[in-house]
Amino acid sequence: MSLLKKSCAELVGTAALLCTVIGSGIMAENLAGGNVAIALLANTLATVFALYVLIEILGAQSGAHFNPAVSAVMLWRKELPAHYFLPYVLAQLLGAVLGAWLANAMFDLSVLQFSSKLRGGSGQWLAEAVATAGLVFVILRAPAGRASTLVACYIGAAYWFTASTSFANPAAVFGRMFSNSFAGIAPASALPFVVAQLFGAGLALLLHAALGERASAASEQAS
Amino acid sequence: MSLLKKSCAELVGTAALLCTVIGSGIMAENLAGGNVAIALLANTLATVFALYVLIEILGAQSGAHFNPAVSAVMLWRKELPAHYFLPYVLAQLLGAVLGAWLANAMFDLSVLQFSSKLRGGSGQWLAEAVATAGLVFVILRAPAGRASTLVACYIGAAYWFTASTSFANPAAVFGRMFSNSFAGIAPASALPFVVAQLFGAGLALLLHAALGERASAASEQAS
Amino acid sequence: MSLLKKSCAELVGTAALLCTVIGSGIMAENLAGGNVAIALLANTLATVFALYVLIEILGAQSGAHFNPAVSAVMLWRKELPAHYFLPYVLAQLLGAVLGAWLANAMFDLSVLQFSSKLRGGSGQWLAEAVATAGLVFVILRAPAGRASTLVACYIGAAYWFTASTSFANPAAVFGRMFSNSFAGIAPASALPFVVAQLFGAGLALLLHAALGERASAASEQAS
Amino acid sequence: MSLLKKSCAELVGTAALLCTVIGSGIMAENLAGGNVAIALLANTLATVFALYVLIEILGAQSGAHFNPAVSAVMLWRKELPAHYFLPYVLAQLLGAVLGAWLANAMFDLSVLQFSSKLRGGSGQWLAEAVATAGLVFVILRAPAGRASTLVACYIGAAYWFTASTSFANPAAVFGRMFSNSFAGIAPASALPFVVAQLFGAGLALLLHAALGERASAASEQAS
Repeated sequence: MSLLKKSCAELVGTAALLCTVIGSGIMAENLAGGNVAIALLANTLATVFALYVLIEILGAQSGAHFNPAVSAVMLWRKELPAHYFLPYVLAQLLGAVLGAWLANAMFDLSVLQFSSKLRGGSGQWLAEAVATAGLVFVILRAPAGRASTLVACYIGAAYWFTASTSFANPAAVFGRMFSNSFAGIAPASALPFVVAQLFGAGLALLLHAALGERASAASEQAS
Repeated sequence: MSLLKKSCAELVGTAALLCTVIGSGIMAENLAGGNVAIALLANTLATVFALYVLIEILGAQSGAHFNPAVSAVMLWRKELPAHYFLPYVLAQLLGAVLGAWLANAMFDLSVLQFSSKLRGGSGQWLAEAVATAGLVFVILRAPAGRASTLVACYIGAAYWFTASTSFANPAAVFGRMFSNSFAGIAPASALPFVVAQLFGAGLALLLHAALGERASAASEQAS
Repeated sequence: MSLLKKSCAELVGTAALLCTVIGSGIMAENLAGGNVAIALLANTLATVFALYVLIEILGAQSGAHFNPAVSAVMLWRKELPAHYFLPYVLAQLLGAVLGAWLANAMFDLSVLQFSSKLRGGSGQWLAEAVATAGLVFVILRAPAGRASTLVACYIGAAYWFTASTSFANPAAVFGRMFSNSFAGIAPASALPFVVAQLFGAGLALLLHAALGERASAASEQAS
Repeated sequence: MSLLKKSCAELVGTAALLCTVIGSGIMAENLAGGNVAIALLANTLATVFALYVLIEILGAQSGAHFNPAVSAVMLWRKELPAHYFLPYVLAQLLGAVLGAWLANAMFDLSVLQFSSKLRGGSGQWLAEAVATAGLVFVILRAPAGRASTLVACYIGAAYWFTASTSFANPAAVFGRMFSNSFAGIAPASALPFVVAQLFGAGLALLLHAALGERASAASEQAS
């Protein structure tokens, strides 16, 4: 399959993911009557469902990264050819913005807008590092054929156990800058989030190496 | 299996689906004390569970379309014999009304009633196109044997990320006209929804072609 | 495996099921601050999880009926030996009461108590017939190895789309008489519920016959 | 795989589990506006997702106990070598505290703190015995390859049907002493909880023996 088609799959998948995250955030905030926990529950369910679906239907095509930090890890592990990296990341960033704009349009909001929600502080940055380390760790250790379920479930948990509601994805940070709603993040808050995420991704590589590569399928079977 | 039995399966499945969507909407609105987000969460869970179950138990019989837009796509792709189309659609529409009436009867409401809930505007119509495009895209790209889970999860996400709560099904529009409750839609709002849905279904065919047919099972295994 | 051990499995499973339904109802009512939709959401999740787990861990032993209506259907279809029927039903009824008592004890309520919650009327009775018909239909048409997931998901939907919150089980009616809480039912309301359930079970047998036995695994594969 | 790496897996998994339980509890309490049922729903979802993920990604390495009561049962059944037991339990206890501290740090709370939430009384202690008996019973009878889903779903139900919200794990008790939040437990309440849990684990061994070992995979297939 050509690199063009693979990059298209990354663009479509990341757009759909961001459209889900932002759109369900807008819907949830509109309906929840001020109870943020209910809004985040709805946001969580929608995100978990969408991640599972998108990884299932696009994984065979592009690997379903939808996330520059994941693509960087795959590059580092030589599981992604070097010349794929830039097209993948550009497709992810472009898809993220298109997804945000589509959500804005569906909810009759001005298409071009920027978030004014400041997010930051040492707790939030630690949370982003933890969230991304967990995500990469899960991807590296997922038994064959289960990455779709495991990534979706992991993010469902991380929305709640991290103080930052787990962006864990530079493309998600980028797209969510373009929506002044529940899921948004102010452009001024973006850079430290991305730095923390890349730091977390590196941490996961170390932890994965320390624990040893996953046992083979055979020993799994036996366990 | 005869066309008659297949059409019966479409009727039973669509009736059960609409009965679930409308019945759980009534129950949720009755109990939620005015918090629409909680009502939609309950409505979402019931719909996701029902879709998964119905596709699992009736898929082998009729393909479990329960949706004229899906049947039209299958006809276009020559995966549904031409003379099946009209019986399928009639069974779906009849099932949808019967499902609505059954829900009305269970909740001690007058069986014959019409929704007065107007739904529309460019955001809602865009949302229906997006919702249906996503649904058809998921169906066309679902790995073998996973359509039940993927369609259910997709709709669970789309209830929240689309501004229209994702009808995505002309038979659902038809049935929901017959219930003046949470899930209803006024007859006057129906036609533009259906047009948007068919437009979205066409869009999905284009997008699917652009990305290329799904990779084979073999390459999936390898991924 | 001996009939005694099979009956023990039915007793343990039905006790665990009723303890879950009643216990989670008490917990949910205690915590939900009067919002019945939130209480029913929690009650639904706990029941869905428990049903899935119990059918998985006890299905191989006894078939995991936990429900006299299901045992009656299996007897009718000659899938349950005739002399198994009475021990199964007695084990289910005894288990149901023990489960209710265990829930009462855990929540520091008097162990022996009776519900005063009257449930009835034509809508509720229709709902019980529909709920049980659906349950039996799902069991009869479940693809091999999926009954645990399908039954759990079906009940999760039926808690919301039926006006009676779907008891769908004479043993559940019996056990829930012994708890004056969220999930309870007054003894005076029990008989019509059971009659409606048995009527619904019969209806499912008819509908299943009308649609034809499930397609074979081979044709499923091909679909 | 060396005992050191296995113990590391137990430490990492137990840390992640406790970080999820405590972190999602803090987040849920912060957002739920005083509605404890909504907070417990979020806490439940996060825990279920995390348990499933952790057992999947670490099960092949260490068995994914994350729980001294489970390790004790495996020791008793000679499924865990005797010299593994102490390192496992120490890793679990250390992991539990580290997980609590990580949650505290992410939410900008003082890292070292102790819970002041007293939990106890006969109902709560009975609940802990029931919760742990159920957990061990599920583990002992889980069909091959399904322990991850079954344990996660079981705990999801037990959070609601037991009066104590189901700690069911001495390491969880230990870790939750170190967080003065939603999920915490006062050190003074810890010992009776652990005693009840060990009693419950023993009960499960008895019940499992009484019902007979699980039927073989062959007879499962046939059922």
